[in-house]
Amino acid sequence: MDFHIMTLFPDMVRDGLNTSILARAAQRELISINTYNIRDYTTDKHKKVDDYTYGGGAGMLMQAQPVFDCYAAITAAQRTRQRIRTIYVTPQGKCFHQEMARELASEEQLIFLCGHYEGVDERVLEEIVTDYISIGDYVLTGGELAAMVMVDAIARLVPGVLNNHDSAETESFTDHLLEYPQYSRPEVWHDRRVPEILLSGDHAKVDAWRLEQSIARTKERRPDLYERYMAEHPGKRK
Amino acid sequence: MDFHIMTLFPDMVRDGLNTSILARAAQRELISINTYNIRDYTTDKHKKVDDYTYGGGAGMLMQAQPVFDCYAAITAAQRTRQRIRTIYVTPQGKCFHQEMARELASEEQLIFLCGHYEGVDERVLEEIVTDYISIGDYVLTGGELAAMVMVDAIARLVPGVLNNHDSAETESFTDHLLEYPQYSRPEVWHDRRVPEILLSGDHAKVDAWRLEQSIARTKERRPDLYERYMAEHPGKRK
Repeated sequence: MDFHIMTLFPDMVRDGLNTSILARAAQRELISINTYNIRDYTTDKHKKVDDYTYGGGAGMLMQAQPVFDCYAAITAAQRTRQRIRTIYVTPQGKCFHQEMARELASEEQLIFLCGHYEGVDERVLEEIVTDYISIGDYVLTGGELAAMVMVDAIARLVPGVLNNHDSAETESFTDHLLEYPQYSRPEVWHDRRVPEILLSGDHAKVDAWRLEQSIARTKERRPDLYERYMAEHPGKRK
Repeated sequence: MDFHIMTLFPDMVRDGLNTSILARAAQRELISINTYNIRDYTTDKHKKVDDYTYGGGAGMLMQAQPVFDCYAAITAAQRTRQRIRTIYVTPQGKCFHQEMARELASEEQLIFLCGHYEGVDERVLEEIVTDYISIGDYVLTGGELAAMVMVDAIARLVPGVLNNHDSAETESFTDHLLEYPQYSRPEVWHDRRVPEILLSGDHAKVDAWRLEQSIARTKERRPDLYERYMAEHPGKRK
């Protein structure tokens, strides 16, 4: 799977995604992460990529021309005839969630546009963007971190990227439940003991305990998810 | 404001937050971003920081000892007597949002713990963590990107960090509305004209048009925010 990221800060994106699991996946050519500096595509002689907003307002806007020409260069270099899904990372988008990550992981290529300054000229968005996505209801200094978050969440679902295939399955949000508490060695640390049941070797009891813990934790921390879980498991008592 | 980030990948965090607005803020000493490699604090002779999970299960768990000793070193070095708020970045947390960013921006110091592998031993979380926060309902390969997102969202609200003081005010989520479309030069691009009203110089009309656009866009893309806006502005017609 190929990720193409249009940004004013290609080093930040490359360095931030070149660590640990994703770096290994890129080495094994399961994924490729390609960054493009929008500034390289401006026709302005001073290499400017932004300008004031029509109608007034604070801050500078990224102009249409460099963004469009960067996009055109990316798509021209790909062999596919299909339109490549192009994501604009913006608080003005749909909220990203795990099912969306799963759906996007089935694409062969994805393009991300990272805005900076106050935003991007609406006209180029209308021409190139297929998906407006937000990673959450908060504001960042730019789109880079948000794009990196999405690439990370999507890339780890590409088959082979995670070492242990189980890991992608038995994790948060499967079945709307949060994960149970986990413990590692030693058995006693700072006078705190690992719960006896986890040392019992009785897998059925361990599983039952973990499910109970997951439900209790979800109820406490995320009542919205708990309600969904209960609605789908009417046999459970509240 | 001082940010302290406990991680196995300090370079990734440092590089990713050393760009543009936050780099300038750090140079001007409005914020400091300090990273700590948890691996430097392990007492294991092979520098190991993780081990199997009691009760079985895929993946490795980060152990209590190196995490706790890293935390103890950070807090010992600070002059404050107050307990420093310590955030564990986890899908098992409350959802991060703009009001939470604003609230956290009033702290003088914050500590972030980034998990990796399958999680962190529950006992050390119980000892050190004050806030469990998630940046959204999706799973990442580690906590680093999520911590970087939070630091970015919080740091930009520290007074003086944004150049233009207006920017932090007239932006998404103020008043539950998404931003209106914006346009920059040229007036015509790819046969698309900037809306006439934005060139009129009539500020009252521009403001009215922008509000109308914001409402329409919010209704289309984020019906949940639209409902909240309407509930608080009963004078508006649907």
